[in-house]
Amino acid sequence: MNYGIITYIIGWVLNFEALFMAPACLVAVVYQEKEGFSLFAVMLLCLVLGVLLTRKKRGGKSMYAREGFVAVALCWIVLSAFGALPFVIAGSIPSYIDALFEVVSGFTTTGSSILPEVESMPHCLLFWRSFTHWIGGMGVLVFLMAILPLTGGSSMYLMKAESPGPSVGKLVPKVKSTAMLLYKMYLGLSILQLVFLLLGGMPLFDSITTMFGTAGTGGFGIKNDSIGGYSTYIQVVVTVFMILFGVNFNIYYLLLKCRFKEAAKSAEVRIYFAIILCSIILITINISGMFPSVWKALQQSAFQVGSIITTTGFATTDFDLWPSFSKTILVLLMFIGACAGSTGGGIKVSRIVILFKSILKELDVIVHPHNVKKLKMDGRIVEHSVVRSVNVFLVSYLFIFAISVLLISLDNFDFTTNFTAVAATINNIGPGLEMVGPTQNFGMFSNFSKIVLTFDMLVGRLELFPLLILFSKNTWSK
Amino acid sequence: MNYGIITYIIGWVLNFEALFMAPACLVAVVYQEKEGFSLFAVMLLCLVLGVLLTRKKRGGKSMYAREGFVAVALCWIVLSAFGALPFVIAGSIPSYIDALFEVVSGFTTTGSSILPEVESMPHCLLFWRSFTHWIGGMGVLVFLMAILPLTGGSSMYLMKAESPGPSVGKLVPKVKSTAMLLYKMYLGLSILQLVFLLLGGMPLFDSITTMFGTAGTGGFGIKNDSIGGYSTYIQVVVTVFMILFGVNFNIYYLLLKCRFKEAAKSAEVRIYFAIILCSIILITINISGMFPSVWKALQQSAFQVGSIITTTGFATTDFDLWPSFSKTILVLLMFIGACAGSTGGGIKVSRIVILFKSILKELDVIVHPHNVKKLKMDGRIVEHSVVRSVNVFLVSYLFIFAISVLLISLDNFDFTTNFTAVAATINNIGPGLEMVGPTQNFGMFSNFSKIVLTFDMLVGRLELFPLLILFSKNTWSK
Repeated sequence: MNYGIITYIIGWVLNFEALFMAPACLVAVVYQEKEGFSLFAVMLLCLVLGVLLTRKKRGGKSMYAREGFVAVALCWIVLSAFGALPFVIAGSIPSYIDALFEVVSGFTTTGSSILPEVESMPHCLLFWRSFTHWIGGMGVLVFLMAILPLTGGSSMYLMKAESPGPSVGKLVPKVKSTAMLLYKMYLGLSILQLVFLLLGGMPLFDSITTMFGTAGTGGFGIKNDSIGGYSTYIQVVVTVFMILFGVNFNIYYLLLKCRFKEAAKSAEVRIYFAIILCSIILITINISGMFPSVWKALQQSAFQVGSIITTTGFATTDFDLWPSFSKTILVLLMFIGACAGSTGGGIKVSRIVILFKSILKELDVIVHPHNVKKLKMDGRIVEHSVVRSVNVFLVSYLFIFAISVLLISLDNFDFTTNFTAVAATINNIGPGLEMVGPTQNFGMFSNFSKIVLTFDMLVGRLELFPLLILFSKNTWSK
Repeated sequence: MNYGIITYIIGWVLNFEALFMAPACLVAVVYQEKEGFSLFAVMLLCLVLGVLLTRKKRGGKSMYAREGFVAVALCWIVLSAFGALPFVIAGSIPSYIDALFEVVSGFTTTGSSILPEVESMPHCLLFWRSFTHWIGGMGVLVFLMAILPLTGGSSMYLMKAESPGPSVGKLVPKVKSTAMLLYKMYLGLSILQLVFLLLGGMPLFDSITTMFGTAGTGGFGIKNDSIGGYSTYIQVVVTVFMILFGVNFNIYYLLLKCRFKEAAKSAEVRIYFAIILCSIILITINISGMFPSVWKALQQSAFQVGSIITTTGFATTDFDLWPSFSKTILVLLMFIGACAGSTGGGIKVSRIVILFKSILKELDVIVHPHNVKKLKMDGRIVEHSVVRSVNVFLVSYLFIFAISVLLISLDNFDFTTNFTAVAATINNIGPGLEMVGPTQNFGMFSNFSKIVLTFDMLVGRLELFPLLILFSKNTWSK
């Protein structure tokens, strides 16, 4: 294990965290909030530690998968550990475990909150809370790679460990350029949404924070009723952009390069939109009696479907009051999640497609044992190692899921609450059902359960392996 | 597709069904119940159809995996379709869909019931209902193979399709002898339990039906309170035998051959007992406050753990009233299930072990990409095709599970009810939680949901592929 390179990367992440806190400090100055000092103090702390760690010469250039995965896991833990401090120092969230839950929920773009109400929080901290979504959405190490001259090709492992999806492709041959391109598209789409929100008459602060929550598919709002209090226009804009941020960013690259045919051929994106369409229609029919018009039901259905499948977690209505059929669709969407290579969480549509195709293939093996075709996607053969990795992903996911539900059941809440609390955190959604429904929060859980759910958010965002690697004996052996 | 051999096998299954109904007719004679006529009539019907189908010369000897899987699926459907008739004709269960649910629950050794109370049912039908457990436990086609001279080696496909577990091994080189051996051990263990029950002063009829329910890991009782009304001695005997019938029958073969060392080495069986032990201890601690003594809590805990992990489904207490932690353990045990090669259902311990080892292997691949060891179990390498098949099993299982929960949610019951109803049927358990808890029944579901759950019971018992094959286009192509 090359410890030198890992501490070096952690150092840079701390430097960048200080940088990320700067805009929030600015907000404190604008609104003249004394809580800005807590942000400023932590910013300085990050900077001092970061400069110390990055001054030391890094231990050679050798970085393999092991170092990449460990570095990503540790960076996210460090990022969260320091990111939580401003809330505690300012007194907005007195308990450190609560603050950690909240900021991990931010960075992992989950959007689950332990706060019963958010409107009393100062602007600078609300800004920081929402900004963590935007940073975590595309990924802090992807950001780092876009800016820093790292160890060349082997930094691909960092990208593999942080980016969502079964296999991470480079848009262009160089990792640095790929990372840069991703952030440019991310920024462009974010600014576009901001413009649409401002055009709808949304105040600037609300627009920026709502954009952060949408772009990162996070879901933290700055109002107690999430997006429910805004105009229909705003709600529609948010619906559309949530769904857009759940699309694989490779598609946007293809569109930018005018390779429309290739973009349209993507099985994942087509199935993603098909699932969204079917879900919206089924739920609209199911809930139409609860709303004054079909149009209103359609709008609510579309918002909630878009919010859940992209794992954003904004809400405009209490879907916990919907009929069981609609709620079950939403729970299933929680697991499916968005596209690979997007800012969304969940299992990811491409994994679901690969898994479904593997069933069809196995049935073929039984019927025609000597005439088996390879598993293909978008016309290309899916490598055996990818199929295996997707399968192991699913298995690890289920094990972690089951153990988490068991551990938090010690708090003695009902099964639906526990099940959907884990589903909402490991898939980085935000709200669940029953006691963690859209009008509720995660504050009632014990500290132990909060730590379990915090772990689930991290393990879900980093797609399991980087965190699991930390617990493997072999990782730390010579 | 060789349709000749399939109809021939179905014919023999009908002949055997007639044979299986004979003891129940005898019970009707003993208790002088007029409902015996319905059994007798259906028995004749099966015999006439069976003789007609088996008189025709079968179409050659060619039987491959495809024919084997299709034959097993169709046999079980035919067996259930006729097995349900006596209940309808006798008027004990007027609705055919209800009767089908009940008898599929019997043959698949599920034990879920649509009946709010069973004590008013005539003895002959209660006997038939419980006897289906015993037949379904070891399998009707295994029975057929033990008796009939079938197509030699290729009848192995029938055994593969009907016997539970990721890979079916023959105890002895000949399939017929293996099937015979399995039934001999099954019968021996059943008689042993019967003796123990009778020694405890249980009436003969109660002893026989309870033995059927235990041996097949079914769970139909003849009392409204399941096993709760019997003495502690009886409850302990049932606990022990439930757990014994959940053990891989290969182990009993090894024990009979005095190969104790080999038997003790089985990872599956050791882990099976370890899970049982841990679960009993954790639940005992969790529920100890609810019972007058720790000993009583231990006994209740052991009974319920044994009943759920072996997927029997007998109950001695309403565990739906237990704390959330204990209920969650039971729900997890529902999925784990018993050992492969036992009469129990669920995913099976050996599959769980293989899946868990595949996680460890994948972590090794990340850390040491060039130094990967093969997946081993009991010192032997697990073939790649077995690992793949286990993975596809899990994926298919999850898809069927998710779609089933969605479909039955149309009845608008709560999520816990729907989730555990599907878990209880697809894993062949019996009771779930909430509205399908141990003191409740499945009668409140709509006919549509009952059909979905009936399918789940069948698909669970036959371990998915035989039924899925029926829906694959390739199966029916030339």
